Amino acid sequence: MLDLPFLPFCVPLGGLGLACLAFVGAWCQRWRGGFAWDGSAQMFNWHPTLMVTGMVVLYGAAALAYRLPPARRGPKLPWKALHGALALAAFVLAVLGLVAVFRFHERRGTPNMYSLHSWLGLATVLLFSCQWLAGFGAFLLPWAPARLRSLYKPLHVFFGSTILMLAVASCVSGINEKLFFSLKNGTTEYKLLPAEAVFANTLGLLILLFGVLVLGALARPSWKRPDADSPDSCQ
Amino acid sequence: MLDLPFLPFCVPLGGLGLACLAFVGAWCQRWRGGFAWDGSAQMFNWHPTLMVTGMVVLYGAAALAYRLPPARRGPKLPWKALHGALALAAFVLAVLGLVAVFRFHERRGTPNMYSLHSWLGLATVLLFSCQWLAGFGAFLLPWAPARLRSLYKPLHVFFGSTILMLAVASCVSGINEKLFFSLKNGTTEYKLLPAEAVFANTLGLLILLFGVLVLGALARPSWKRPDADSPDSCQ
Repeated sequence: MLDLPFLPFCVPLGGLGLACLAFVGAWCQRWRGGFAWDGSAQMFNWHPTLMVTGMVVLYGAAALAYRLPPARRGPKLPWKALHGALALAAFVLAVLGLVAVFRFHERRGTPNMYSLHSWLGLATVLLFSCQWLAGFGAFLLPWAPARLRSLYKPLHVFFGSTILMLAVASCVSGINEKLFFSLKNGTTEYKLLPAEAVFANTLGLLILLFGVLVLGALARPSWKRPDADSPDSCQ
Repeated sequence: MLDLPFLPFCVPLGGLGLACLAFVGAWCQRWRGGFAWDGSAQMFNWHPTLMVTGMVVLYGAAALAYRLPPARRGPKLPWKALHGALALAAFVLAVLGLVAVFRFHERRGTPNMYSLHSWLGLATVLLFSCQWLAGFGAFLLPWAPARLRSLYKPLHVFFGSTILMLAVASCVSGINEKLFFSLKNGTTEYKLLPAEAVFANTLGLLILLFGVLVLGALARPSWKRPDADSPDSCQ
């Protein structure tokens, strides 16, 4: 396979991440009435926007922090801090995204947590919270024994990719569900494929492509930080 | 991480695969009226059943064929043939699963290919057909040059995992969509979480767990066939 360096790969990947943000924002603004924080349908719009921003784009950036060329040399601690901070920011946005949908359901009297999308989405965020706490405890706090770190690291890496995969599956099922809810009248029926449906379906495919590229980059051996077992990794 | 051997891991994984088949079959039989091949709603039921059987369970078995301990020794050709045959069987079932839903839509006059689930699902099967043909041409036909094989192999491996991930996302969005279609009256509304909804949501989570475990097994370095670059790999 072509030995592509990481940085040139980041340019289209970053563009794709920004396209995901632009598409989800434009969908909610252009077709779903924009944004508010008052329990209305406009509050619901923060749900897809914050979940895509947090659980897909920021999460992907956090996952790839160690692949940046400067992270391959010198002390690991600043890159750990960047990885943890980006992941924490992603988690905060995800929690706000959950608040948005729960408040919207409460105001409308709609039950929470019945669809497969909601089960999967909440499980993904809960798994992410465990992953962040365990990662913080094992890799950023100074007293975790080196043996524990080396035992836990492959699990952290495995769940890192798994959570992104689950987040992408949550987004796809959520966009699909939202379009069935919203497009059901006259000429705007989902099955008639109006412009909104094409636009939001395309958003789903962009999110999938972004997730697949991040997972591919994470799995690529030549882009991994080489000093996995150096003493520095136990800072 | 614990150095678990592959075979003991296969026992719960195989059980999980069988549970996915049992759940999807029981869902369609118990709550959706069973099976037929006549364009009716009973014909639609072959769609989830064949997609889960083909694109998830059989596909997962095909992907893991090289991880079996006997595949690590001796000639590679029989294992290539097994891998290719299982993948072909998975593909045939997937095509039949697509026929089932297209025939069902035609008979009801419902448009095809409008939902994100349908876009993603068809893209996944098309990608799988390219993957199978390219894999057959590069690895099973005797005249492909060794250089081409070694160049293409990482791509085949990458798309192998990617297609499984897309198939799992397709299944989750499809189950979610089907439940919104089917459960919308009185006491069987999806949002009231009747027994069928709990059962089919659980099927979605089982499929996700199966997919994550297969992807984790594929990524595990110690389970990979060691002789990736031996002359035998160019049989």
